[in-house]
Amino acid sequence: MPQPVAVDAMGGDHGPAETVGGAVTAMREHGVPVVLVGRAGEIRRELAHHGAVGEIGVVHAEDVVPMAERGAGAVSTAASAVSATSSLGVACQLVRQGTVSALVSAGSTGAVVSCAIRGIGRAPNVLRPALAIALPTTAGGATVLIDAGATSDPTPEMVAQFALLGASYARLVLGVADPSVGLLSIGSEPGKGNRLTRRAGELLPVLPLRFHGNVEGHDVLAGTTDVIVTDGFTGNVVLKNVEGSVRATLSLVARTGAATPEALREVARLYDPETHGGAALLGLTGTVVVAHGASRAATIARACAVARDLADGGVTDRVGDHLAVEPVN
Amino acid sequence: MPQPVAVDAMGGDHGPAETVGGAVTAMREHGVPVVLVGRAGEIRRELAHHGAVGEIGVVHAEDVVPMAERGAGAVSTAASAVSATSSLGVACQLVRQGTVSALVSAGSTGAVVSCAIRGIGRAPNVLRPALAIALPTTAGGATVLIDAGATSDPTPEMVAQFALLGASYARLVLGVADPSVGLLSIGSEPGKGNRLTRRAGELLPVLPLRFHGNVEGHDVLAGTTDVIVTDGFTGNVVLKNVEGSVRATLSLVARTGAATPEALREVARLYDPETHGGAALLGLTGTVVVAHGASRAATIARACAVARDLADGGVTDRVGDHLAVEPVN
Repeated sequence: MPQPVAVDAMGGDHGPAETVGGAVTAMREHGVPVVLVGRAGEIRRELAHHGAVGEIGVVHAEDVVPMAERGAGAVSTAASAVSATSSLGVACQLVRQGTVSALVSAGSTGAVVSCAIRGIGRAPNVLRPALAIALPTTAGGATVLIDAGATSDPTPEMVAQFALLGASYARLVLGVADPSVGLLSIGSEPGKGNRLTRRAGELLPVLPLRFHGNVEGHDVLAGTTDVIVTDGFTGNVVLKNVEGSVRATLSLVARTGAATPEALREVARLYDPETHGGAALLGLTGTVVVAHGASRAATIARACAVARDLADGGVTDRVGDHLAVEPVN
Repeated sequence: MPQPVAVDAMGGDHGPAETVGGAVTAMREHGVPVVLVGRAGEIRRELAHHGAVGEIGVVHAEDVVPMAERGAGAVSTAASAVSATSSLGVACQLVRQGTVSALVSAGSTGAVVSCAIRGIGRAPNVLRPALAIALPTTAGGATVLIDAGATSDPTPEMVAQFALLGASYARLVLGVADPSVGLLSIGSEPGKGNRLTRRAGELLPVLPLRFHGNVEGHDVLAGTTDVIVTDGFTGNVVLKNVEGSVRATLSLVARTGAATPEALREVARLYDPETHGGAALLGLTGTVVVAHGASRAATIARACAVARDLADGGVTDRVGDHLAVEPVN
């Protein structure tokens, strides 16, 4: 009998109703041995609904981590909210003792991360843990996005370690022998990015991994690299942006009815940089429109029309008028 | 005769061939008066291809900003590369003198930004400019994303000003009387986010704008707010991620052939957080799977199966083995 997986019964927006139901399904349908951790009374009541009392072990934990702690975020803040006697705290202890093989929690990411660091412990040399998630790509495989939200303000050294962790994950889970790693940034040339990314970009080439260089937002689903590494803030925003953008696109496609090739092209045009003509650079005393670097003549022409309209409307000047605050510092 | 729009003829990946063609189209088809700025010889040669010599004014500028400066990035780095005698530098002077009404450039965003700051100048009280772009939403309107890449390491005060600039843009360009502004973060509760976002989140509620609170990556195309404010690094990654995710989704839909409602649901499932079951928290001495907070029973069950597989494969432990580097600092 393999060791069970501990399920944090109190975690998640829907509490024991869904976590207990999930544990029952895991056992009955996926053959995964599980143990539920949380308020024994509430858990047993839910188990009874499934006729599963006695079928699944229960470990009592009195405290519940508030779901206001939900979402990735400040680990230091979350830490104080997670007691060792919470379902999460007790479950981490079970992992540490080796009583269970793993922990599943739908609780606050921040709380899970801080609790796991204290209750289970970091692997040797690891500065901070990171969340890895494999996203399907149009190239047919998957790209591991890391960090998807565990550490929102990492140092460049931590980001470099995330790259190593992501590469190991791609090797072991996706079975890629020598995974390529891209650093998520805002330009493909080395040296592009914010301070954190530029410094991480100096560390990555000397690590024992196949560093591809910088990748950009459009590379996430394109299969450009096997791993994309970033900080937990950007990674979490990107993960949710992918989910939202896919949903939005499908809803726009569904509205076209027939979803003909022409209809798909119509949706594509909505978000094609060639369509909007350019972005307005605000906060200057004159009108400036920045067109996409890859712009063809039609896009430049559209950018000129946009610039004319902005200038005619005095938009960029008037934007300044509305900045009716003293310098805020 | 209204003042012309200056087109940076040397900017963009494709140089004068496309910028001059665009200027000709802008004038002939959109009725926008334009003037081309750059190497007069090259520009006239292109104008000749369109039979437009003499039709469009040319202002000579000898230097060209290298396209390696392309993409948003370190303004300070770019600044040194942009000479006052470049096409960009001369065009900015024309804006400042009022000889032209606006500037259009497909050049390096970093170069355009730094050149515009020095050559045109910031509006009163503005700390740093920001790029605004209106993205169509599934709600039918548009959301202004700001900053889409002008200032990659802003202070919290700058982000707060971007919010004011974005709100003004939504009022003046989208015609929204009292635009709502969301702060892009990784949790909807106040206090979620990285350091920059948390501090900006403290400034925004006291500004003269309708602050909605935090929004997340999935809100960008959902029409949750009229404006979404973020730093130029995150904004640029998100903008390109939207473009790439829409493209990827449409390509997956096109591959299904008929694009039936069932086929669309199949694509949706690929990126549904309910499908993947959870993210692996790497860098610990034990296996932890973080499921989505909104998980229902089926997702919890899948997360248990994922956790079992990770534990069976010793994946999270072995990930540590591959971290075969000394602490990198």
